[in-house]
Amino acid sequence: MITDARSDRYARLAIEVGLNLAAGQDLLIDADVAHAPLVRRVASAAYVAGAHHVDVAYTDPHLTRALIEHGGHDALDFTPECAVRRLDDAVRNESAMLAVIGESERDLFADLDGTRVGLAQRPAERAARMRAIDSERVNWCVIAGPNEGWARDAFGEPDLERLWRVVEAAVRLDEPDPVSAWRTRIAELTARAAALCDRRLDAVRFRGPGTDLTVGLLPASVWRSACAETARGGTFVPNLPTEEVFTTPDPRRTAGTVRCTRPLILDAVTVTDLELRFEGGRVTHVDASSGADVIRAMIARDEGASRLGELALVDRTSRVGQLDLIFHTTLFDENAACHIALGHGLSAGLAPGAVGANASSIHTDVMIGGSDVEVDGLLRDGSAVPLLRGNAWQLG
Amino acid sequence: MITDARSDRYARLAIEVGLNLAAGQDLLIDADVAHAPLVRRVASAAYVAGAHHVDVAYTDPHLTRALIEHGGHDALDFTPECAVRRLDDAVRNESAMLAVIGESERDLFADLDGTRVGLAQRPAERAARMRAIDSERVNWCVIAGPNEGWARDAFGEPDLERLWRVVEAAVRLDEPDPVSAWRTRIAELTARAAALCDRRLDAVRFRGPGTDLTVGLLPASVWRSACAETARGGTFVPNLPTEEVFTTPDPRRTAGTVRCTRPLILDAVTVTDLELRFEGGRVTHVDASSGADVIRAMIARDEGASRLGELALVDRTSRVGQLDLIFHTTLFDENAACHIALGHGLSAGLAPGAVGANASSIHTDVMIGGSDVEVDGLLRDGSAVPLLRGNAWQLG
Repeated sequence: MITDARSDRYARLAIEVGLNLAAGQDLLIDADVAHAPLVRRVASAAYVAGAHHVDVAYTDPHLTRALIEHGGHDALDFTPECAVRRLDDAVRNESAMLAVIGESERDLFADLDGTRVGLAQRPAERAARMRAIDSERVNWCVIAGPNEGWARDAFGEPDLERLWRVVEAAVRLDEPDPVSAWRTRIAELTARAAALCDRRLDAVRFRGPGTDLTVGLLPASVWRSACAETARGGTFVPNLPTEEVFTTPDPRRTAGTVRCTRPLILDAVTVTDLELRFEGGRVTHVDASSGADVIRAMIARDEGASRLGELALVDRTSRVGQLDLIFHTTLFDENAACHIALGHGLSAGLAPGAVGANASSIHTDVMIGGSDVEVDGLLRDGSAVPLLRGNAWQLG
Repeated sequence: MITDARSDRYARLAIEVGLNLAAGQDLLIDADVAHAPLVRRVASAAYVAGAHHVDVAYTDPHLTRALIEHGGHDALDFTPECAVRRLDDAVRNESAMLAVIGESERDLFADLDGTRVGLAQRPAERAARMRAIDSERVNWCVIAGPNEGWARDAFGEPDLERLWRVVEAAVRLDEPDPVSAWRTRIAELTARAAALCDRRLDAVRFRGPGTDLTVGLLPASVWRSACAETARGGTFVPNLPTEEVFTTPDPRRTAGTVRCTRPLILDAVTVTDLELRFEGGRVTHVDASSGADVIRAMIARDEGASRLGELALVDRTSRVGQLDLIFHTTLFDENAACHIALGHGLSAGLAPGAVGANASSIHTDVMIGGSDVEVDGLLRDGSAVPLLRGNAWQLG
């Protein structure tokens, strides 16, 4: 059951650990209308923590459906100017930004034309969101709100109580002191990222059923935990939960084939059994049991949409992985398994001031890890450093 | 029951009669999240009618409650800059604007400090909305969305079916051809406004139990029906339903006392038995059984908030009046009875280019008419022209 007490604990975690909200900050929240009950508790917690103003932009996938169904072709990728300005203002005002995700109606676009679905992405707003994230002037966080639709996707039945319990386990709300539990976990992941940096890897190779993929890194690629810092020195945790260490790869040097190990939910369409072939950094072939056209439209969006912007490693100590569920939402599923992301490369995954990250209006995580996928780091001399075996972390 | 068919009929009426939406126009919708089911049908109808893009800003009174309860005093009247820009952009783009109102939780703010409730009005956004309306570059309309909370207010029980039926009667959706029924009614009201203009009234006087109020007019005051026209010549009907003829009075020349004949819902607070005394155009005394502090905070908002911006006459042929209900929403209740409005004066109620309308960030309708209130027009020589007797229209 959604109770205010339950929502309030989650809200406080998002404010204290996720955003580490400073007194006097403005907070922007982006959330589906289905998340209104949780969003209201977050707004309340934010004001209690000293927020100046909380501005909520409720999104509604039914409006997007109306656009895709009946709108003119030219307007499919339209973004109102004020939606872009809202995000640009957040950078200027050094606001905090919270997104509450969690699909409530996964198949809402399933009967629509995949190309039109792929276009209706508000690319200008997405680009502004990425500018905000890359500006290092906003503290931001993504959480997921349990709802019946999501429960149905995850369990085959709308068991909201069960979903709340697994979400609480994944985000450590089952700990007596969730804030301190997160500080400990973030320290572990940060140590792991430092060990990876020490090895000065040239590439990472994944091998498993249907997969033999090598992702080349840049000399400037830096491994990080998902604990970030604004230019002013405020730390925040952009994803709750987070179990990954990640880096920004060389967009020109991915090669091979990869079979995704979990379904991917994109624009309310489920993409299953996705297989990608990469040549010279670019996706050159897409196959899937369902949803392939949405992926094809996505990678055609812009020059960088078919190249990698992120590489992330997750092992079996992941709380999300331990729950052994397919959550049907990237925020959780990406933290169960190693993943790559098509599109925008985070500057946080490069040395300060370095360039070379992929540029794109999209950023889509694709899960490729699992217990039967071996992961090696490759050094410049071609020798291999085992990173994951049987999903167990191999570095000190 | 809310059915898609029922919502679709209402949506088409709003698009065709209310907005008279032109192909290629952008449409802005402002609505409480409680109205999402109807809003989605309106968006769909708008795209079918050729809208370029529909931008919905969902509002949520629970967020306002969080601000009033826990926010800093300085932030109570804060409006994010992008919310103002959104409305200014609507003027520049000659967009259409639809508001879907209808309180779903009337007493949500009842336990909060009235002064803080009164401040949390986003005055900069309200002012931008009034600029948009006065610009004569947008076609705009306000409709009300039936919901259980509103049904509970109106009937004492959440009888949504009954509310839909009375709303459908009030907005003529029970007619075989609602669009043509509205064209006929608007023509009647427009003829009534022309007859009032011909009389060149200097003032209007209301006399009834607890009421003896004289509202002075400007030489430039013009009577109108609520059928408006953009500068480009597109006609639209700003309120559905509408049963009034209105004008913009002289903000300096209201005098006397008035007892309101219907409860007023303001900021989710019900103001009952409101009595106002006017001297030299300004409210100098406020009394009420409940909600007086919200009215006092409201009229202190700015210089013009205690002066009149509108005067409207409604007779017994009103569909809303015939339903003999207190709807607990101004859009309907104002169309059951004669009313005055505190605050902003519409330039539409003055001759083209004329000045002298009241300036304020608020516009709050207050119902003062009824079967036991006599209304006279006063000529400059002091003689009286009967306008309403027993709520029956007296002019030709």
